[in-house]
Amino acid sequence: MVNRVDKNTILCISLAARPSNHGVRFHNWLYERYQLNYLYKAVAPVDITQAVAGIRGLGIRGAGVSMPYKQDVMALIDEIHPSAARIDAVNTIVNTDGHLVGYNTDYVAVKQLLHTHNVEPTLTVAVRGSGGMANAVVAALADHGMRGVVIARNIDAGTALAQRYGWQHDTQVPQDAEMLVNVTPLGMAGAEEDVLAFSEAEISRATWIFDVVAYPVRTPLIQAAEKLGKKIIHGGEVVALQAAEQFRLYTGITPSQQDVLAAEDYAQAP
Amino acid sequence: MVNRVDKNTILCISLAARPSNHGVRFHNWLYERYQLNYLYKAVAPVDITQAVAGIRGLGIRGAGVSMPYKQDVMALIDEIHPSAARIDAVNTIVNTDGHLVGYNTDYVAVKQLLHTHNVEPTLTVAVRGSGGMANAVVAALADHGMRGVVIARNIDAGTALAQRYGWQHDTQVPQDAEMLVNVTPLGMAGAEEDVLAFSEAEISRATWIFDVVAYPVRTPLIQAAEKLGKKIIHGGEVVALQAAEQFRLYTGITPSQQDVLAAEDYAQAP
Repeated sequence: MVNRVDKNTILCISLAARPSNHGVRFHNWLYERYQLNYLYKAVAPVDITQAVAGIRGLGIRGAGVSMPYKQDVMALIDEIHPSAARIDAVNTIVNTDGHLVGYNTDYVAVKQLLHTHNVEPTLTVAVRGSGGMANAVVAALADHGMRGVVIARNIDAGTALAQRYGWQHDTQVPQDAEMLVNVTPLGMAGAEEDVLAFSEAEISRATWIFDVVAYPVRTPLIQAAEKLGKKIIHGGEVVALQAAEQFRLYTGITPSQQDVLAAEDYAQAP
Repeated sequence: MVNRVDKNTILCISLAARPSNHGVRFHNWLYERYQLNYLYKAVAPVDITQAVAGIRGLGIRGAGVSMPYKQDVMALIDEIHPSAARIDAVNTIVNTDGHLVGYNTDYVAVKQLLHTHNVEPTLTVAVRGSGGMANAVVAALADHGMRGVVIARNIDAGTALAQRYGWQHDTQVPQDAEMLVNVTPLGMAGAEEDVLAFSEAEISRATWIFDVVAYPVRTPLIQAAEKLGKKIIHGGEVVALQAAEQFRLYTGITPSQQDVLAAEDYAQAP
């Protein structure tokens, strides 16, 4: 057999200006594991309006949506799920008989992680970052009942993000911050991979360290948190859980925790 | 490795109301043979306008077009190649940087087969059938320089088809027909699989038998022609050659004759 594709194969895709192999590897691994006649293909759309038309016209079951299309697709689909409406950004489209519903599984994943890690809602938080993912993270933290500050170099974006969820903006990490969250590229593979997103003193004073960076999982921040014995949530958990939630939306199957970790391992392999 | 798909995989599709596995198996076999990072997927489009938008929007390289979309797509693409303009039907769309050109590889394949089999243009022909494929076949025969009659139960369609290429319509096979061509479902697997498309007497008088039916290749007509020692062109040759021409248009590679036959063997396997 050349490959597993036949006329009945159900197609899922991702839409990103610069597609990665993560989704392709994660989803196809789980399709194989659960013996589903599905195929996942990453796409760099030429035109987002025609791409969404293609989801309908070609009967594509689901689409992951990445930068810079998370807002653009909202006007092109039929229904916005509360997870996407809450943060005004869609990262997942599900097509059921031509009816397109937009979800945000980043928001869902962060909320679930705060819950499963038993993070106390009374803790005060400092979130570094003010981009689209920071928006999903602050919304999930706020909806978990937490209050805190947004630390952003871009004062306009940081203030707007903080105000949206009744938080404060600051340029410094407050002394009493019990949970530190990094939602910037600091520590990510590339130009800033050696940068520690918070100082050792700040990390020492905190209880929880949450780094959304997933490539690599063991950023300087996570390594420092390990050394200092802090409680940790890392970016690999977010990436795997949001993708697992997409898988569930596309197939109706909830993958086991063990299979999600194995799929994520496969997806992270070089 | 779960499968060969990655973020750079180039997608080709087919658009048909009732997709078959032929194209999927034929094209994917050749992609594997030539180590191309391509994937072929059959699609039953929900809406042909949005499906063609999707070819553009999702950067799909090529699309085979089957019934009932061969005319509908003509208004939706950017350019009609002479092979499709000649017969007013597109069976192949090639997308080059968002510019969509429609071809007809059925017409191209039949013309090539008449040439490679050294069919003399002076022979008189009787073509049974008046549907879309009969149109491609009569056009190719006429452009090979041949004249003849269209035999069709549907007198209006038969007369219109014959007149389009300066031929005659008839309800009977003329006594002097030297080439008999079947472009009906007679002899095709299904309700009419035991039906001989021309009588034994008609076959005896002819030199050439050309059956467009490809499933199975050895129809009652082809079997009778073999028994009577006639020269033969069969439907498997048309199907393989038109698909090979699509492959060439999508990839720029002309597959060897041997590989086309092997791909067709694989595609025909149950």
